Amino acid sequence: MEHRGSRTAPPTLGVGMVGYAFMGAAHSQGWRTVGHVFDLPLRPVLAAIAGRDAHAVRAAADKHGWAAAETDWRALVARDDVQLVDICTPGDSHAEIAIAALEAGKHVLCEKPLANSVAEAEAMVTAAEAARERGQLAMVGFNYRRVPALTYARRLIAEGRLGTLRHVRVGYLQDWLVDPDFPLTWRLQREHAGSGALGDLGAHIVDLAQFLAGEELVGVSAQMETFVKERPRLDGASSGLTASGSTRRGPVTVDDAAVFTGRLASGALATFEATRMASGRKNALRLEVNGEFGSLAFDLERLNELSFHDHREPVATAGFRRIVVTEPEHPYLEGWWPPGHALGYEHTFAHQARDLVEAIASGTDPMPSFADGLQVQRVLAAVEESAQKNAVYTPVQAEVC
Amino acid sequence: MEHRGSRTAPPTLGVGMVGYAFMGAAHSQGWRTVGHVFDLPLRPVLAAIAGRDAHAVRAAADKHGWAAAETDWRALVARDDVQLVDICTPGDSHAEIAIAALEAGKHVLCEKPLANSVAEAEAMVTAAEAARERGQLAMVGFNYRRVPALTYARRLIAEGRLGTLRHVRVGYLQDWLVDPDFPLTWRLQREHAGSGALGDLGAHIVDLAQFLAGEELVGVSAQMETFVKERPRLDGASSGLTASGSTRRGPVTVDDAAVFTGRLASGALATFEATRMASGRKNALRLEVNGEFGSLAFDLERLNELSFHDHREPVATAGFRRIVVTEPEHPYLEGWWPPGHALGYEHTFAHQARDLVEAIASGTDPMPSFADGLQVQRVLAAVEESAQKNAVYTPVQAEVC
Amino acid sequence: MEHRGSRTAPPTLGVGMVGYAFMGAAHSQGWRTVGHVFDLPLRPVLAAIAGRDAHAVRAAADKHGWAAAETDWRALVARDDVQLVDICTPGDSHAEIAIAALEAGKHVLCEKPLANSVAEAEAMVTAAEAARERGQLAMVGFNYRRVPALTYARRLIAEGRLGTLRHVRVGYLQDWLVDPDFPLTWRLQREHAGSGALGDLGAHIVDLAQFLAGEELVGVSAQMETFVKERPRLDGASSGLTASGSTRRGPVTVDDAAVFTGRLASGALATFEATRMASGRKNALRLEVNGEFGSLAFDLERLNELSFHDHREPVATAGFRRIVVTEPEHPYLEGWWPPGHALGYEHTFAHQARDLVEAIASGTDPMPSFADGLQVQRVLAAVEESAQKNAVYTPVQAEVC
Amino acid sequence: MEHRGSRTAPPTLGVGMVGYAFMGAAHSQGWRTVGHVFDLPLRPVLAAIAGRDAHAVRAAADKHGWAAAETDWRALVARDDVQLVDICTPGDSHAEIAIAALEAGKHVLCEKPLANSVAEAEAMVTAAEAARERGQLAMVGFNYRRVPALTYARRLIAEGRLGTLRHVRVGYLQDWLVDPDFPLTWRLQREHAGSGALGDLGAHIVDLAQFLAGEELVGVSAQMETFVKERPRLDGASSGLTASGSTRRGPVTVDDAAVFTGRLASGALATFEATRMASGRKNALRLEVNGEFGSLAFDLERLNELSFHDHREPVATAGFRRIVVTEPEHPYLEGWWPPGHALGYEHTFAHQARDLVEAIASGTDPMPSFADGLQVQRVLAAVEESAQKNAVYTPVQAEVC
Repeated sequence: MEHRGSRTAPPTLGVGMVGYAFMGAAHSQGWRTVGHVFDLPLRPVLAAIAGRDAHAVRAAADKHGWAAAETDWRALVARDDVQLVDICTPGDSHAEIAIAALEAGKHVLCEKPLANSVAEAEAMVTAAEAARERGQLAMVGFNYRRVPALTYARRLIAEGRLGTLRHVRVGYLQDWLVDPDFPLTWRLQREHAGSGALGDLGAHIVDLAQFLAGEELVGVSAQMETFVKERPRLDGASSGLTASGSTRRGPVTVDDAAVFTGRLASGALATFEATRMASGRKNALRLEVNGEFGSLAFDLERLNELSFHDHREPVATAGFRRIVVTEPEHPYLEGWWPPGHALGYEHTFAHQARDLVEAIASGTDPMPSFADGLQVQRVLAAVEESAQKNAVYTPVQAEVC
Repeated sequence: MEHRGSRTAPPTLGVGMVGYAFMGAAHSQGWRTVGHVFDLPLRPVLAAIAGRDAHAVRAAADKHGWAAAETDWRALVARDDVQLVDICTPGDSHAEIAIAALEAGKHVLCEKPLANSVAEAEAMVTAAEAARERGQLAMVGFNYRRVPALTYARRLIAEGRLGTLRHVRVGYLQDWLVDPDFPLTWRLQREHAGSGALGDLGAHIVDLAQFLAGEELVGVSAQMETFVKERPRLDGASSGLTASGSTRRGPVTVDDAAVFTGRLASGALATFEATRMASGRKNALRLEVNGEFGSLAFDLERLNELSFHDHREPVATAGFRRIVVTEPEHPYLEGWWPPGHALGYEHTFAHQARDLVEAIASGTDPMPSFADGLQVQRVLAAVEESAQKNAVYTPVQAEVC
Repeated sequence: MEHRGSRTAPPTLGVGMVGYAFMGAAHSQGWRTVGHVFDLPLRPVLAAIAGRDAHAVRAAADKHGWAAAETDWRALVARDDVQLVDICTPGDSHAEIAIAALEAGKHVLCEKPLANSVAEAEAMVTAAEAARERGQLAMVGFNYRRVPALTYARRLIAEGRLGTLRHVRVGYLQDWLVDPDFPLTWRLQREHAGSGALGDLGAHIVDLAQFLAGEELVGVSAQMETFVKERPRLDGASSGLTASGSTRRGPVTVDDAAVFTGRLASGALATFEATRMASGRKNALRLEVNGEFGSLAFDLERLNELSFHDHREPVATAGFRRIVVTEPEHPYLEGWWPPGHALGYEHTFAHQARDLVEAIASGTDPMPSFADGLQVQRVLAAVEESAQKNAVYTPVQAEVC
Repeated sequence: MEHRGSRTAPPTLGVGMVGYAFMGAAHSQGWRTVGHVFDLPLRPVLAAIAGRDAHAVRAAADKHGWAAAETDWRALVARDDVQLVDICTPGDSHAEIAIAALEAGKHVLCEKPLANSVAEAEAMVTAAEAARERGQLAMVGFNYRRVPALTYARRLIAEGRLGTLRHVRVGYLQDWLVDPDFPLTWRLQREHAGSGALGDLGAHIVDLAQFLAGEELVGVSAQMETFVKERPRLDGASSGLTASGSTRRGPVTVDDAAVFTGRLASGALATFEATRMASGRKNALRLEVNGEFGSLAFDLERLNELSFHDHREPVATAGFRRIVVTEPEHPYLEGWWPPGHALGYEHTFAHQARDLVEAIASGTDPMPSFADGLQVQRVLAAVEESAQKNAVYTPVQAEVC
């Protein structure tokens, strides 16, 4: 005899996702998993997914577990069974989709970077603020804030364990552009991608620096570089990452690397490096924060570990501790495995989903907000401006929308 | 307009799971995820779950995504919509359930250790062999073989990259019994658990040593110890891990730690340590293999990394390389994320599910087989025998069932 | 019966050292040891040491093994038994002593930084060039070039193992100024120390970046900061590092930290951070170089190790190798211990002594030259200029003396 | 004007050394350096060195800084200017020289292992006890006790920071015998070397295990192996490590590797592995100690670091700390460099010399004593006995001389 549950099932939250490449796959995994790990006040339902190619979007829906497929994101936004629109498209379409979704009465989760320009991001913030009046929520997907080690790092800093901060240093190093024959995809063209390593990797580390420090960057000094200035063109028919035999080369119009220094509001010094040209570094997001009372260090390639130095301990037994961030006392860990059992990259998307679902259920504001995303955009704009002006220190535009 | 898929959906494979504690949760995550990551010839369906407590099993079904719940595993085994029985119960029930499921015409996946005794394991092998004649498959769940770094390590060894092996050393260190007031749960009672650290942790490292080396242990010399000989009894009403105020103590009847040395068939020396008393070590499964042409090293707390030393390189540039095992060229990685994006503990269960589904679809034998599980059981029996006989070298029973 | 040697002993090289604090002790250890480890064409003799305080310099001579003591460095320079003057004083006296020694016909080894200003350094280069005509040699003591791992790193880069360079990143982090009550020693006063972290730590990392890359920095963009702007004054009577109860505070007139980005001649991007405010980091000189064909990484706290990634290897077995730089094939190792036996910090001074002695014997030019020291000074000057001008990119003065 | 010291120089201690290979070079460096780093009550004088080959010993005296050379160790022992005899010869001559030196009224420092057999070691202890009555001291040179990180580890354990010990695990891995064509030197012949990896590497780790734990091993269970049973003979004329073209092979009569488990007096479990066949491991002495209140870990290839886990800390911030053992508060560090400046292998010999000189000056007993060396020898004998008796647990002979 089967036993049917008697407990009242929670109400559902219909999710509609736009885009189904790398970020779409990762978000899907988050949405599919979150309700099986955490006790949620709303049950997410993977209602529909949208993409332009009918065949491909149907295949993506099947693969990733979405009930329906749409070829027009406007149709997805209009669906009655969608209460939350999750935007996983490239940055140039974020503003249009997000604003339309908000105007259609939906909650919105938008992948980082919030937009490709400050102006777009400002429009999105305005739309989000108007929607907030109507009870809708908007969140930007800086998923690395939800690596448990980093969430916990923020908690330690907020509790004052580091005291006054002196230094924040963050690098995000990858190497997929080292080969000069890697082809000229849309990611290397300014009109589509906005920028290169800066928007892709730099956005993450700017957000993390500000998130961890709990304060904003007030100015930056930057240098940017495109080391390989021409790459093989993709033939017209090609849509993927593989060059189809073309020997013609075209100009790369985004940066391969950006290095910049900055000041936090408190006066702490920050250093940043974002590059796709660091041979041997696959996804090396490394950060360190030094304060008067202690320091923290982290490496995304070892994401279950946090290093913590307590400077107030006796010097003979002081040292950076390798905390394995898998205890029930650590953020998000109550839902997962016993101590020492590692989490991976994708878990950040389940954590993001949990926090957003809880915010929607309780009507509180999820973090990071669109305003947080706009602030990052303003830092990136200041970086580009500084790089164009011989690295001169360039203030980040103040927060008057 | 919605777009419905035209491709023919693959046939389904109904899975029924018995047990829903830690292993049940981990297997569920594997079954829920595997079809969204890999292209499978059969689509796993989470058909039913069985447990004794009606309320709890229903809640578990809801939480983990199983369509139905049964309070009697025999009912689950009898269901028409179940073609594969996945056994996640404690070891003392493995033999009965597995044999019944095989006799009922089901495929079987059985968690490690295969059984609590050699005799039980032998009966299971006999049942599996008989079922194999009828086209049914049986597999034992040594999931760590499917950590990509370890699967890849095996491949390198099989290709001869290490040459003749000299040393295998493996330790599996945990610390959850360090506190002498941790209560006397069933895991610390021989009649229920079979053994302590030996069966729980030692089974994993014996299997890994043999898997990586590609050869069997032929004899062992062992010492075992129970450091904390009495622990607080759980009151009758208590079922969990928390002692409810009892100050009476009862005897611990399993080992806290087992250390043993052994010989592989080729003559290589192996060393093993399994303990729950290593303060500060949460899930530290560490191994190293040294051969004439090179060495490999691994640490489960950094499961995306494999260290490889190629001894045939010029000495001035030789050294252990930290391979980040996240490339498309690495096992199981084609379905996951871009290079450098870490996997976690639970992914091993999706990999296990994939391999089993593919074996079922193709009619090939999945690894590790019940015979492999029996072989591990025989090593564990030799360890216990040696420990009882003053550590004298004790041959592992030969493979005549 | 004793056995007296019959081999002809090599001629001697009389060394006279000025200064006997930390650097004096380290250089002494180098001079005492070098002839016992390497076969040298000249035998260094620790002839005399100079310092202002008669009692202290005599004690230092006894402690460090110098035959004679002088209270006036001019007397030391004038001694017939001194052929080489080794300058270990603070930077503000380097130029005067070095020029006098060169004019007196002595070879000169001068601790880094070469001087406290570009003008002084230029005068020293002029003096060295004139002395070179007379067969005298001059060398600046950037000892970290002679950490075997770094000497070997340079060799790999020079051989083209990294191909075209893209990134050089170097940080030198210490924490001895974290405590705001650390007193106002001469090192924190501009008139004596020239600068703070920049000249002390920054000079090392600028030299290393240029040494490893084999090319010069052409411009920089910098920010500098003094986080603790006032510190307890030392009482007049006090000469050491311990504040003697003074509660009066005085202004710190040098930098606590300097962060800067730069360009190498080839277009590679370089980043630098020098600080004494990184709690928990004692002597953390860390560097990484990324090139088209591979990368190198190093950490002074693990100075016997070099990490090397060969990007031309098959991706599945590629990764940063931990080379233990203790093989006879590695630089300077032929004189020391068997493989795996670690060297320490002080060994760099023995290596420096060896190379200088060999250069003197053969009449070849030792590296780094005073011109190299001047080039570093010009970079530091550009850093200070940029920091004063809102971080604007500031070219390094070209090499026309 | 030169300034001559007025302080009374300390009395001298004449040292005579027998043997001048690897250990002789290392001890020489210790004796030459110790007085320049530490304030000693006696000033060591490198009086004379002894070796059989007149030419070679004279060259060694010159190279290593010894005033005189003797071709007969008896002549050295008889010299009036020698008060301490430092024995650096292979183990088969230790007993004869040490006993003769003690009988001649000298203090003795004897390299490890104390002897090649228990009987010899017992005779040495008897001689040392008799000499002690006359005020002479005897010490065995287990230099790794004087790696500052290990001296400090012992201090933490002695202070009770780990509580009751549960596990000690130590491995000492090298790889210089991996090549099957490495020639058959005296080190591979039992009649000269006593044993192979066991006496060479195993002696170190047995001593360290007992030193750190502060208690003795009471029994062991062992397996030993000679993987490469024949190696190329050295031609008669050859005396070094290089095979001179011989294609004839002879039998290796010592072990390549020894693995053993043991019990400490308190009941803690210990595991040991000593091998020269671990490809890629150059000098990897790694140890870990787990206790009820915490754990310590160490790796000789990173000898300036000690890992310490304090199990009584809140679990969320607990973890193994990387202590950089270079603070003035750490053992032996007061004489060396500022924090973070690494020491190397050879420093252990200066530390050993300091402690022995201080013991001689104060008339206290230096550690480790000859009795400590005998105890290690008894453990090694029990290991060999166990290995011959099918690994059966073999008690270590009790301490009745």
